[in-house]
Amino acid sequence: MTPARGDHAARRLEVSEAVWRVLSSRGFGGLTLRAVAAEMGASTGLLTHYFPNKRALVAYALDELDRRSLDRPRRNAPADGAPLPPAGLPRLRAALLDILPLDDAATAGNRIWVGSWDASLADPDLAAAHAVRYARAREMLAEHVAAAQRLGELPDRLAPAELAAGAQAFVLGLVVQALLAPSAYPPERQTALLDAYLAGLAATPAGPGIS
Amino acid sequence: MTPARGDHAARRLEVSEAVWRVLSSRGFGGLTLRAVAAEMGASTGLLTHYFPNKRALVAYALDELDRRSLDRPRRNAPADGAPLPPAGLPRLRAALLDILPLDDAATAGNRIWVGSWDASLADPDLAAAHAVRYARAREMLAEHVAAAQRLGELPDRLAPAELAAGAQAFVLGLVVQALLAPSAYPPERQTALLDAYLAGLAATPAGPGIS
Repeated sequence: MTPARGDHAARRLEVSEAVWRVLSSRGFGGLTLRAVAAEMGASTGLLTHYFPNKRALVAYALDELDRRSLDRPRRNAPADGAPLPPAGLPRLRAALLDILPLDDAATAGNRIWVGSWDASLADPDLAAAHAVRYARAREMLAEHVAAAQRLGELPDRLAPAELAAGAQAFVLGLVVQALLAPSAYPPERQTALLDAYLAGLAATPAGPGIS
Repeated sequence: MTPARGDHAARRLEVSEAVWRVLSSRGFGGLTLRAVAAEMGASTGLLTHYFPNKRALVAYALDELDRRSLDRPRRNAPADGAPLPPAGLPRLRAALLDILPLDDAATAGNRIWVGSWDASLADPDLAAAHAVRYARAREMLAEHVAAAQRLGELPDRLAPAELAAGAQAFVLGLVVQALLAPSAYPPERQTALLDAYLAGLAATPAGPGIS
């Protein structure tokens, strides 16, 4: 069903697409009402109907990023009826691979996530919303860690939340490196680095005196 | 020696301080000629003498960040005659701790580094300059890894460059988490997470089949 031209839903979609294209090419630093309007071939005045100010535009962009991230097909939630990876370490690995910029869609999304940190750190409300997003992601990772510990695939000396925080740190940093130097971090290398990291987790001695 | 008011060096210093204050509070998204001029109580016209456009202002901010990062006292290069940590794993650990936002100065610098990624990803020249910076940092880390391998503190199955890339990813991601959620990542937790990561590196089996 194609909504009629001028329809509110269709216009919102046009706005979303324009915001997305501006972010992809210019990042949050280039996200202005004027740039979005130019991308749509519309007037800045029309845009103020949707976004009274820059802050509203940035908040909208972050929500749009959430929506697109949720809609992206995932190894950990295959849309096409493909089997889920086995619970435990394989599912943790799949969840971490899902975060890395291993294909164009994940690269585009990550470029915008990384770009959003500057705006978020300048605004306590946006920073808090980001902190909640990342905490939720850690909880999901911690469930996979706990399953891997129950299966004896990971040592259980460290709490699942600590292992999950470490794993999240590792992939977030790898995302940044891969975006800034894509030729130095092709998908195979990102995957090999992640696998070496997971091998380290699995091998960490269970005894005390970890540091 | 205090330079005379109106002196070029003094004026440059004033500009640097104003750029820094704007970045600290508003990030790269808020870095405009107008904001820097307002911070200095000067006219925008005066600023165009230093920065013909926004891009020149961003490039200057990144150079300033380099200078301040180099000038920051480091565990790995103590300025006060304190002994260097022993070569190998302790020196690798000190170099990684030096990156983390464990005190106010490191937090301020990291906030601006993280904020710079958005602008850098929108500009191929800036991205390439960042890639060079991070590659240099990895080379330094790889030297510490190689020393730790020679001392038998780290297994030598993985090349130093790969272990260094993994360690850099880990701390960069931890920086991001700690900045977005400082109360969830106090210095002790950052340090404990890093130590758990290093324990995993040290314990990674030397045999084949690492994944």
